[in-house]
Amino acid sequence: MDDAWTGPTVGQLGELAVLDRIVRRLPAGAPDVGPGDDCAVVAAPDGRFVVTTDMMVHGPDFRWAWSSPADVGWKAAATNLSDVAAMGATPSGLVIALAAPQETPVAVLESFADGVRAAVDALSPGCGVVGGDLSTSAVFTVSVTAFGDLGGRAPVLRSGARPGDVLAVSGELGRAARGLARLFRDGVDAHGEPSRSATVASGADTDPDVDRQRRPVPPIADGPRAATAGATAMLDLSDGLAIDAGRLARASRVTLDLDIDPDADGVAGADDLALHGGEDHGLLATFSPGVALPGGFRRIGAVVARGGADLVRGGEPVPTTGWDPYADWDGAAG
Amino acid sequence: MDDAWTGPTVGQLGELAVLDRIVRRLPAGAPDVGPGDDCAVVAAPDGRFVVTTDMMVHGPDFRWAWSSPADVGWKAAATNLSDVAAMGATPSGLVIALAAPQETPVAVLESFADGVRAAVDALSPGCGVVGGDLSTSAVFTVSVTAFGDLGGRAPVLRSGARPGDVLAVSGELGRAARGLARLFRDGVDAHGEPSRSATVASGADTDPDVDRQRRPVPPIADGPRAATAGATAMLDLSDGLAIDAGRLARASRVTLDLDIDPDADGVAGADDLALHGGEDHGLLATFSPGVALPGGFRRIGAVVARGGADLVRGGEPVPTTGWDPYADWDGAAG
Repeated sequence: MDDAWTGPTVGQLGELAVLDRIVRRLPAGAPDVGPGDDCAVVAAPDGRFVVTTDMMVHGPDFRWAWSSPADVGWKAAATNLSDVAAMGATPSGLVIALAAPQETPVAVLESFADGVRAAVDALSPGCGVVGGDLSTSAVFTVSVTAFGDLGGRAPVLRSGARPGDVLAVSGELGRAARGLARLFRDGVDAHGEPSRSATVASGADTDPDVDRQRRPVPPIADGPRAATAGATAMLDLSDGLAIDAGRLARASRVTLDLDIDPDADGVAGADDLALHGGEDHGLLATFSPGVALPGGFRRIGAVVARGGADLVRGGEPVPTTGWDPYADWDGAAG
Repeated sequence: MDDAWTGPTVGQLGELAVLDRIVRRLPAGAPDVGPGDDCAVVAAPDGRFVVTTDMMVHGPDFRWAWSSPADVGWKAAATNLSDVAAMGATPSGLVIALAAPQETPVAVLESFADGVRAAVDALSPGCGVVGGDLSTSAVFTVSVTAFGDLGGRAPVLRSGARPGDVLAVSGELGRAARGLARLFRDGVDAHGEPSRSATVASGADTDPDVDRQRRPVPPIADGPRAATAGATAMLDLSDGLAIDAGRLARASRVTLDLDIDPDADGVAGADDLALHGGEDHGLLATFSPGVALPGGFRRIGAVVARGGADLVRGGEPVPTTGWDPYADWDGAAG
């Protein structure tokens, strides 16, 4: 484990003292009214705001054997910011509710806060944590709600793709899944349980793919860029290209035709992971033909009229099913 | 237990089928874009919005032996709506993240959703649940984030009370705490553990005070009314009159002088509970002298220049400490 797992515990210090130590480490942003009143007040100059919420639970969503507290803070922020970006919005604030076992060292929560700050600074500078809540639970649980401003643009929904549009992706494909596969292979003990020492001894701990699994790098700024460029549909790639493309196809009542090998792009190296690996949190979007693709977007296919399948490649249907390596795991272990 | 604790489980049905059964039971409100995309889009005609978040964990925050799933849904919604009202804002939306053990009957989640809907319909009709997340955890955990619109008014903070102002309260004092005290006395087995059968056998199950503990009735509409009437400071009474008055006094750098017995108001019947009992979720506010108190607000004292104590009554300091009967309980039991 890392240094965060020592020192006084949450139960020893009490909620107020813990909050005081955490809040100062979080990115403050510039809300009209921040933590300390019944609510925060956040600017919404557009007259609307977008909102998303996501809960991460120790066991099904992360393991301390594989991720540091700062990694979990990073990922909790990054995945929610990505959902905001996928609407074409610019993140304007986060609120974080966290429940930790009483015996959790306060340093773990401080490190978690440092991870949140690092993610916001790297991915969406200026987006503050405007409020939160601290509770006790036997299971370490984080719930993040993120807001964003549309800047006067229409939200980019999943349902707007039209035949003839270009299908494009921003961000890496398959790296987070490759990292998780490495952890499941090399980061476990003789009984198959996640193990910190096995993760370190095998070298998995310093594998750049493992780093991507722990700290996804969603292209947040490409969300508003896509909206400005006139993206007709967009979503966040959380469950893998195939399953998320299937969602976009069904919402838009079109078929998506992949016209390159995703791994010819050089980002995955393994075709199956690029198509089916989740948690990269890139953006999948469609654009009218002729639009100059903005930011990191590159063409991977086209939108065609609704056929039998949601997703095809070389004329063959691609299953739009996800890949969930945790599905059969005991959610309370590890 | 009630009927919700039977039938197919969350693990048997899977996330999508469960979500489908829950979402249709929730109050829809009228967001521009509702559940089903990466984010919801919520109107913020004021150009700002207020936001609060609160996590409720089985054990420290509620017990299935004492509360039905619908009670927990009601309380999760009501307590967050109350924080929005305490800013002087009108609730405009909720998002709910929920994690349940795999063996939880789906009917429990449906009943929870019914409770959310009942609370919103009763307390803040028109405020919809615009988004959410469903996860798995060994501990039933609910995280609600609520939004509100200020309608062009300044937010009513805790820090605005001025000497000479009237101190007023809306909502009941002490009933929720009296209900919880009853549960701790009569709703436990021979070992002191929360017991559903003891709760029923003792008659505590039909005690109106117990109902208030399970389903608080915050005066949501009085929040915007107070703001319109020019309230100088306001907060939600979550931890009891004394501790919350202490917060307002310190934020405003004033002393609050109670000039009536809270229980002379006839709402509590026990002075100590009215002063120190939490979870009523009434509103404590200060108004300029001469203002006609709006809605259910009634005078309970006055704001005086900063003295030694945060709160006094009859010239004597009142301790501004809270009452937390759960503090020494095992957060994982029950």
